[in-house]
Amino acid sequence: MPLIVQKYGGTSVGDLERIANVARKVAARKDEGNEIVVVVSAMAGETDRLLDLAKKIHPVPNEREVDVLVSTGEQVTVALLAITLESMGYKAKSYCGWQIPLQTDSSFGAARVTDVKKEAVLADLRNGTIVIVAGFQGIDADGNITTLGRGGSDTSAVAVAAGLKADRCEIFTDVDGVYTTDPNITSKARKIKAIAYEEMLEMASLGAKVLYIRAVEFAMRHRVPVVVRSSFNDNDGTLLTEENPEMEKESVSAVTCNMKEAKITLSGVADQPGVASQIFAPLAAANIVVDMIIQNSSADGKADLTFTVPEADLTKALEICRDIKNRLGASDLVGCNDIAKVSIIGLGMRSHAGVASTMFTALADEGINIQMISTSEIKISCVIQKKYAELAVRTLHDTFGLEKSRS
Amino acid sequence: MPLIVQKYGGTSVGDLERIANVARKVAARKDEGNEIVVVVSAMAGETDRLLDLAKKIHPVPNEREVDVLVSTGEQVTVALLAITLESMGYKAKSYCGWQIPLQTDSSFGAARVTDVKKEAVLADLRNGTIVIVAGFQGIDADGNITTLGRGGSDTSAVAVAAGLKADRCEIFTDVDGVYTTDPNITSKARKIKAIAYEEMLEMASLGAKVLYIRAVEFAMRHRVPVVVRSSFNDNDGTLLTEENPEMEKESVSAVTCNMKEAKITLSGVADQPGVASQIFAPLAAANIVVDMIIQNSSADGKADLTFTVPEADLTKALEICRDIKNRLGASDLVGCNDIAKVSIIGLGMRSHAGVASTMFTALADEGINIQMISTSEIKISCVIQKKYAELAVRTLHDTFGLEKSRS
Repeated sequence: MPLIVQKYGGTSVGDLERIANVARKVAARKDEGNEIVVVVSAMAGETDRLLDLAKKIHPVPNEREVDVLVSTGEQVTVALLAITLESMGYKAKSYCGWQIPLQTDSSFGAARVTDVKKEAVLADLRNGTIVIVAGFQGIDADGNITTLGRGGSDTSAVAVAAGLKADRCEIFTDVDGVYTTDPNITSKARKIKAIAYEEMLEMASLGAKVLYIRAVEFAMRHRVPVVVRSSFNDNDGTLLTEENPEMEKESVSAVTCNMKEAKITLSGVADQPGVASQIFAPLAAANIVVDMIIQNSSADGKADLTFTVPEADLTKALEICRDIKNRLGASDLVGCNDIAKVSIIGLGMRSHAGVASTMFTALADEGINIQMISTSEIKISCVIQKKYAELAVRTLHDTFGLEKSRS
Repeated sequence: MPLIVQKYGGTSVGDLERIANVARKVAARKDEGNEIVVVVSAMAGETDRLLDLAKKIHPVPNEREVDVLVSTGEQVTVALLAITLESMGYKAKSYCGWQIPLQTDSSFGAARVTDVKKEAVLADLRNGTIVIVAGFQGIDADGNITTLGRGGSDTSAVAVAAGLKADRCEIFTDVDGVYTTDPNITSKARKIKAIAYEEMLEMASLGAKVLYIRAVEFAMRHRVPVVVRSSFNDNDGTLLTEENPEMEKESVSAVTCNMKEAKITLSGVADQPGVASQIFAPLAAANIVVDMIIQNSSADGKADLTFTVPEADLTKALEICRDIKNRLGASDLVGCNDIAKVSIIGLGMRSHAGVASTMFTALADEGINIQMISTSEIKISCVIQKKYAELAVRTLHDTFGLEKSRS
């Protein structure tokens, strides 16, 4: 019997009516003769409501206890969905993270899944029970409740699918798949039928919000077939899968845009070994994720360093950098959040020459200045001024012919 | 170092301001040099809100899942209190029922505590941590979340105090102790300084709402010294303790009144062995608690049976009794909720003669008819018409001189 893991997000379970809707979808799949595990998020808004309570007490509330607090959101949803399915005559049973158990490390608020035990869940599935799992949460080696961070329910679903060796993991969300770019920016955006894990990973890390990066990483590492689809219609979604030859026919698969980054420049630092670590170690210690880094050395033995951080962390990062500036005797420190990062992604880049120069030319033709460039094997990112972001996305989408269906 | 278990109810933790107030009280006791375990309920109204959600889905929602659902209420409170204490500079750590673990049987919604593990909590206390325990919840042998029923947080507190061999269990509530009767009925009601477990047990089972019956039972069985006091002032409360000679000087310690019962009469049933069990087994199976039972046999081999049930269960009980009536060929079935049960309680009854007749005379002098009588070693209960309830309480309170302080 096929084993399917389905995940429904907060909007899909936002009230009792929507939970009933999810229950009907789940029941239909069960009736088709599948074993079903459903992973659900907290009802929309609930996690924020709980976090706000904690932050009213203290701006930086105790992390262990925040996880105890917010994990109740998913616990409420699993119980309500189980009650709904039971009231429809199905056998259903909820699991909190600690009941599976879904083991994680002890990084409260951003824990990583280390193991998913399958025995209890499989026993329930084998006797015909629909298993409902609280997403976003786990338990560490000391028995503390942990949460996986925003988007953690996606990760839970993929981790559970991997742990159970499920035939398929279906992520139901409020969009009906992965698009060549944000449909809000250009109406030419097209839904992608199948995308390689590697491409999706780049897209997720570049700001495509459809699937969280850790979930994609987990799916890639464990080769879990994931389908992203809408919880509000029956359209085919996008299949996340192994790379296949079809995918390489096009040089570029998608264009992404991230407006939520900021740029910090530290000028006139001594150009000598160890400087970079003196700058980035304190930022890492403060859990600030640095993305692009550019260093220019000048003849006088000084260097300018520019790097990007999440916009939300700009103030904290600048505070830390002020200390660093004084310690290193740097001449200047500037922060700027008037930037956008526009990227093109595609497995095909590896075999198509000239993709980068095509991108730079297209942007130049529109008079868009490129402030920073970063590349990987399958993506090229450019930092530009924020006001040109949409123009850049439309231009690149046209330039690489993304409105045409992948063969 | 003295180990004190404190319990705060839903009203005491009803919002963040009240939680801060509780945190200050807890901190003060910690500063005095005590080891502190705090047991808390869900924020006032939260359990009902969650139950209502479940009942909107189905009038009789799946019991296991209801426990998963409502146990989130206490989980939110423990996290918020721990965050508050941590923000005040104290070490604090929350425990859900399953984390202690507080072991129970598997009667969802009304589970009984079977064991409380002390190792983890004691380790935290010994390193100076204030331990905060989610009341009302536990875990069964199969790893399911269970709840202990209404008033379960009192039971949790007493059970934790017993498990840890605490020096004292303080139950903070919205009244400042146990009174000789309901102060809303007579202003002569007086706070009792010390009361025996056995008396408190009778009072709890007779409708005094200050402490739930299972908590009292647990305290009595494990000889836990319990103090009931107000969370809104520093008045001395009432000490629940072993019987002592002082207590027997008075014949009657308290008068209680329960207006939440109803009476069912089944007339003309065959007066033969096995009939009672045919009547009461189906009621027990439906979890309906039958309290007083009276049977009158008549000369024609028929009997009339009258018994009381909680008023909330009257409709369900009558439904079941209709089946029974048909099966037993009884002549009549009548339900009535226009009753009140007025009781007097006192260890001294065992050694004072004539307490019962004094009670009956006092009621008769006021023209109050007694419909049913039930006695135990230390209490006498009379069922009367509801409209006479307050008059009966005032009369008995005066008759037994309860406004005068116990020596």
